[in-house]
Amino acid sequence: MKFILSVFFLSLGFSTVFGQNSVQSNKGTTNQQPTDSIFIRKIYDEALTASPAYENLRSLCKDVGARITGSAEAEMAIYWGKQLLDSYGFDTVYLQEIKVPHWERGTAESAWIIDKNGKAKKLNVIALGGSVGTNGLMQGELVAVNGLEDLVKLGEAKIKGKIVFFNRPFDQKMINTFKAYGACVDQRWGGAKEASKYGAKGVIIRSLAQADDDHPHTGVMDYEMEKPIPAAAMSTNDANTVTEWLKNGKVTLRLEMDCRFYEDMISYNVIGETRGKDKKIITFGGHLDSWDVGEGAHDDGAGIIHSIEALRILKALNYQPTHTLRCVLFMNEENGNFGGKTYAQKANENKEEHICALESDRGGFLPLGFDVVGTPEQLKFVQGFKPMLADYRLYNFEMGYGGVDIGPLRDFYPGMLQLGLNPVSQRYFDFHHAETDVFENVNKRELELGGAAMATMVYLMDKYVE
Amino acid sequence: MKFILSVFFLSLGFSTVFGQNSVQSNKGTTNQQPTDSIFIRKIYDEALTASPAYENLRSLCKDVGARITGSAEAEMAIYWGKQLLDSYGFDTVYLQEIKVPHWERGTAESAWIIDKNGKAKKLNVIALGGSVGTNGLMQGELVAVNGLEDLVKLGEAKIKGKIVFFNRPFDQKMINTFKAYGACVDQRWGGAKEASKYGAKGVIIRSLAQADDDHPHTGVMDYEMEKPIPAAAMSTNDANTVTEWLKNGKVTLRLEMDCRFYEDMISYNVIGETRGKDKKIITFGGHLDSWDVGEGAHDDGAGIIHSIEALRILKALNYQPTHTLRCVLFMNEENGNFGGKTYAQKANENKEEHICALESDRGGFLPLGFDVVGTPEQLKFVQGFKPMLADYRLYNFEMGYGGVDIGPLRDFYPGMLQLGLNPVSQRYFDFHHAETDVFENVNKRELELGGAAMATMVYLMDKYVE
Repeated sequence: MKFILSVFFLSLGFSTVFGQNSVQSNKGTTNQQPTDSIFIRKIYDEALTASPAYENLRSLCKDVGARITGSAEAEMAIYWGKQLLDSYGFDTVYLQEIKVPHWERGTAESAWIIDKNGKAKKLNVIALGGSVGTNGLMQGELVAVNGLEDLVKLGEAKIKGKIVFFNRPFDQKMINTFKAYGACVDQRWGGAKEASKYGAKGVIIRSLAQADDDHPHTGVMDYEMEKPIPAAAMSTNDANTVTEWLKNGKVTLRLEMDCRFYEDMISYNVIGETRGKDKKIITFGGHLDSWDVGEGAHDDGAGIIHSIEALRILKALNYQPTHTLRCVLFMNEENGNFGGKTYAQKANENKEEHICALESDRGGFLPLGFDVVGTPEQLKFVQGFKPMLADYRLYNFEMGYGGVDIGPLRDFYPGMLQLGLNPVSQRYFDFHHAETDVFENVNKRELELGGAAMATMVYLMDKYVE
Repeated sequence: MKFILSVFFLSLGFSTVFGQNSVQSNKGTTNQQPTDSIFIRKIYDEALTASPAYENLRSLCKDVGARITGSAEAEMAIYWGKQLLDSYGFDTVYLQEIKVPHWERGTAESAWIIDKNGKAKKLNVIALGGSVGTNGLMQGELVAVNGLEDLVKLGEAKIKGKIVFFNRPFDQKMINTFKAYGACVDQRWGGAKEASKYGAKGVIIRSLAQADDDHPHTGVMDYEMEKPIPAAAMSTNDANTVTEWLKNGKVTLRLEMDCRFYEDMISYNVIGETRGKDKKIITFGGHLDSWDVGEGAHDDGAGIIHSIEALRILKALNYQPTHTLRCVLFMNEENGNFGGKTYAQKANENKEEHICALESDRGGFLPLGFDVVGTPEQLKFVQGFKPMLADYRLYNFEMGYGGVDIGPLRDFYPGMLQLGLNPVSQRYFDFHHAETDVFENVNKRELELGGAAMATMVYLMDKYVE
């Protein structure tokens, strides 16, 4: 578009919502003050004009890089996070010890297909997290299925000694792409375990991805089985090719991977706090680990930055919280969640009083709202803030999902309100767990607006949850 | 984030809004039918699973490319659009003749700065649309101003014979980036004209861009002046550098551009129609021309595709409209708007009855709603559809701006309701009028969702505007 009469835009100006909204808190009705709107405006001004968010993400992605639990880079990320939190002068910064698994991809990772006439084609593949290696080259006939339920239909007769190809694609009709992911992820999570019961020698899945492209996507599995079998993912373009080839007859897959587990290790959650007037705690965070491809920029570098920004911005604005605001950079979300589980256990052992938790783990895109985990009354309480948040493009407050890391807290604090930052989801699964998840695919302003949204919601929860 | 229990997502499923909403039409209250929700769901299914939208945009960007009015590529784009509309078998496809200006950038376009010690640095510059050339190399001392108002303060004494550098940046605090653009665009639009009154020999502006990067952004000017002076834009990074240099003393700019106007030409709007039961007309469109850098992918290839998709989808679903649905690919939006002006004049001359118009000209990002141009009652009417659109991430229906192309219709049809598609704006001004506005920066699903939003709103307007 060309110029639009400036007078039009100037006349619209920027409106801040000053209306008083009656809000149902968890202990009765509270009148939000016009000061809330003024303070939220200050949060956004700080985030959009004085924020180190983008530079911090660049540093995490480029100075540290991909940081799978147990790797040297994960260790580096702990130092990175501790140093950064220290630099902001929060009341307390410390490490919380956890025990974590240690799996490595190795160096060999390749696959190709051969048809009945001997025509061969290389595939873009990646081992699924936790997989055993192939112990040299493995070969088997591909049996395509559209999901776990097809295994029952085929039975051992048609599966034994073969490699099962889980090929159910994302349903593009789903507007929220996390739902499309949720409807396919059982193939990655349970595929190897279920196929092994029928004697499959290996599995390979269509990558859990939105677009047709050449990048394979990894991710964690349920790998509790007697005799583990190798498991990998191929790119969506390759899955389309294999689908075509299978129409013309038998297709053989050759696969080589030398990934394997090592001894469990000691690692750490990184924690920074601003102490409140009482002893109650609000936890918010993302996860510091990532998969070992790309740079973990959206998953979950963005969530780490959002969470640090929330604590930094509130301190920069001299906000004195009622409750302790605790920013947690969780370790090991991707393959075990021992960061989240240990954090919750320790909170309970230490008899801490936790009243609310927030997480950002859906990428650094423009935030549109927060998912709510709670009762209908808690949902209504959160929705009461909508009028003052619409100017900031925060519209969407519905029942949903909080986050993997904060999830275990509800085992010990049942009924605790949890909120998950909910950004635009359309491009997330172009990058998720793939080599494309790099700093360059995160936009500066969208990242900053995520930090502001997180700071805003932490502020409102601190003020109105008792 | 790692897997999220699929059962969670499956249990959420996808909800379609079946609630009946009382809607104030322009001729009274209408009850929307559950059939509306069902039909809108079909629109989205078509757009997300069977759409040629992304391939069509690729073709416009790569087979045609940048297409400034009067260029061979603009002529090519007319053939491209006519052929595409013909291929869908709409009731009528035709060209509407218009007269357009013809300006060309030429081949020489470079600039550098020199400080008082002779230190030199090359700048990334681009001529503003319509500028005269420099007739060889032009040189002058830079005088930096923060806006047009500074010209008055400086006066002829400090401006005459110099080159004025308009340096007011985007206000990053504005959440809607179009407002930040609107608050700066007077520097580009009126800078040369106003500075020439004080005897400036040329002007150069800080690019109207969101981010600090190396890409200069062009755009149109008000160029009605006695003795036109050359006008260019430099990248935001360069503007920051020049600002620093100016703190240390005099800075000289050397500039060479050989852009110029040619004879006016004949060109065309491209129009496709599905005839309705009555003679009333709903116009919707975008602009087929673009600037001559990049590929016009977001501006306004996306709007062209959205508009064609609206007509294509409704035909694919066998929708029989009440009114004539007219998709217009306007020519010459960027530097003259003779497509939009001529279209409105002809509509009036032909005594056509126009009842509503829609435009998409803010990029191919995720749509969040529509701006409304109309009375408070018309706004309320449009907002009545919100409940059935929230599932599709369409939240935002407020008074705003329709579009440059459809704007002139209101001169002849005062009070006509106009709607402008309103997508996420955060990244738009990274690409606008710059070499970065290419196909690769448009996401397939976000483009498809824009087409669905346009089809949905055309459908609702056809059904409920009388």
